[in-house]
Amino acid sequence: MEKPYVIGIDVGGQSTKFGIVDARGTIMQSGCIEKTGQYEEVNDYVSVLAKALQEITGKVGGKEQIRGIGIGAPNGNYFTGHIDFAANLPWKGRIPLAQLITDQIGIPVTLTNDANAAAVGEMTYGAARGMKDFIVITLGTGVGSGIVIGGNLVYGHDGFAGELGHTIVRPNGRSCGCGRRGCLEAYTSASGVARTARKRLITHTDYSLLRELDPETITSKDVYEAAMKGDRLSVDIFERTGRMLGEAFADFIAFSSPEAIILFGGLTKAGELIMNPIRRSMEENVLKVFKGKTKLLFSELKESDAAILGASALGWETKSKD
Amino acid sequence: MEKPYVIGIDVGGQSTKFGIVDARGTIMQSGCIEKTGQYEEVNDYVSVLAKALQEITGKVGGKEQIRGIGIGAPNGNYFTGHIDFAANLPWKGRIPLAQLITDQIGIPVTLTNDANAAAVGEMTYGAARGMKDFIVITLGTGVGSGIVIGGNLVYGHDGFAGELGHTIVRPNGRSCGCGRRGCLEAYTSASGVARTARKRLITHTDYSLLRELDPETITSKDVYEAAMKGDRLSVDIFERTGRMLGEAFADFIAFSSPEAIILFGGLTKAGELIMNPIRRSMEENVLKVFKGKTKLLFSELKESDAAILGASALGWETKSKD
Repeated sequence: MEKPYVIGIDVGGQSTKFGIVDARGTIMQSGCIEKTGQYEEVNDYVSVLAKALQEITGKVGGKEQIRGIGIGAPNGNYFTGHIDFAANLPWKGRIPLAQLITDQIGIPVTLTNDANAAAVGEMTYGAARGMKDFIVITLGTGVGSGIVIGGNLVYGHDGFAGELGHTIVRPNGRSCGCGRRGCLEAYTSASGVARTARKRLITHTDYSLLRELDPETITSKDVYEAAMKGDRLSVDIFERTGRMLGEAFADFIAFSSPEAIILFGGLTKAGELIMNPIRRSMEENVLKVFKGKTKLLFSELKESDAAILGASALGWETKSKD
Repeated sequence: MEKPYVIGIDVGGQSTKFGIVDARGTIMQSGCIEKTGQYEEVNDYVSVLAKALQEITGKVGGKEQIRGIGIGAPNGNYFTGHIDFAANLPWKGRIPLAQLITDQIGIPVTLTNDANAAAVGEMTYGAARGMKDFIVITLGTGVGSGIVIGGNLVYGHDGFAGELGHTIVRPNGRSCGCGRRGCLEAYTSASGVARTARKRLITHTDYSLLRELDPETITSKDVYEAAMKGDRLSVDIFERTGRMLGEAFADFIAFSSPEAIILFGGLTKAGELIMNPIRRSMEENVLKVFKGKTKLLFSELKESDAAILGASALGWETKSKD
């Protein structure tokens, strides 16, 4: 009999979430390790994780029922199964996480970065079902991307492709966490939105609800909440952020002409506040031959389950290794 | 017996070149139709072309020896086999060129745009042999691109992917033939280089050999020749052009992390004059994880044969239709 389940693991700086998923995307069992960062030794982390996985696996009939494990992790490399120099995790250098987990659990593991996992999730269970060419853009603390072309995730020759958050949208522009200037991420991530707000409050004098907050602690959520109350400056910040995303998307379309661009992550809670300017700007800026062709969609994965589902979808890929 | 040959046809605004090619990339027979533009009716053009092809096919044992025909044409669409609204050809609207030629000759035809044909040519016979992930950038009258990911040409959901000459490198910058502003092509095509020269001569007063020429008629070839004589302003123009290409390449690498970027077309005659600044700027601007990884290469296809070879390489793809 075909093994009916996969395991998805989402390794985040805050916590590690995992679940057992069936072919229709139902999460049968799930669990969580709080504070990934508390395990300074990766082997301790893997032991705790293995124990937790064995426990939930027991509830669905044991590991014979599991086809594969998929992991989404920051800086995860699909080709090597390593996590390479992830800034938000305590383990330094190259960590062979896929191998460490396989060794402990005896189930094949496929690992990639979190945005790629999100793209596979959308293709398997979400907004991209049936699509062969699409791009998932994750708008969270950073801006990530998972690119699918001809039904396959784009890994590039080294496994690191799809860093669209680090395309330069403003030459010599805002400094970015990557050490360069003008990256899309520096403007359109959740922290980019907060940065835009702080800058606007300093350089302009117009009234805003945001002036009631300590500028140093303003978050994209504050900007969103003010915008929902009709605060003009806050609405304008989403407008600018959306316009910049739309310009960048026009370039991405010139590259791979996707059927859809799918937005995922915290900032998408702003809904039409950000989607409208993106859509307008993308259509304004795109080359004529592409006009009106690329759909702009929100992720269809339920936020709380999305990370596990995305990672788990990779587990089905282990077929060829069976 | 396997059919041993393919036919490659390069449809250009100036002329149409064609040849019969074997599996090793040797051009066995070739021919040319001068002035593609003189045939206002596409059917007249196809008749003349068909006759010429029958003639050279007769010399290699007849059409039974031909596996397929590949065509590279401006605005050629791989999915539909149409040429769509090509500005430099006399036929308006959508021209079903692949079907028209198959109807006349009875050999399956695969059509794509000229830059994609160049990429398939490099993969089959040139600098990209053995590579699965690379990008060909054509630097001619315009800037075109053919993108290969995982061994397959990227066509996108509509067959028009790979318009990297129309990514925006300078928001609100120089006007482009596509009707928008700031496209890579507006700066780094042969005509972009000439434009840069004209602008520099007006806005600066420094001495240059180029001042001996009529500014209106300056070409990229003039700039190249002056640069080779040590003209500082001309060297600087290649320096700026190369830097801009390097910045753009850094973004392309963030997208698909290619093993190599291969330069093709007229401007590549400038050799290290343009390659050096591209290489420096690309490495300066690329995200850390990609540094030192992507090769910069010149096309290895002999210039005079390249267009035919590139198109012919598509002819081998007709395998599945046999």
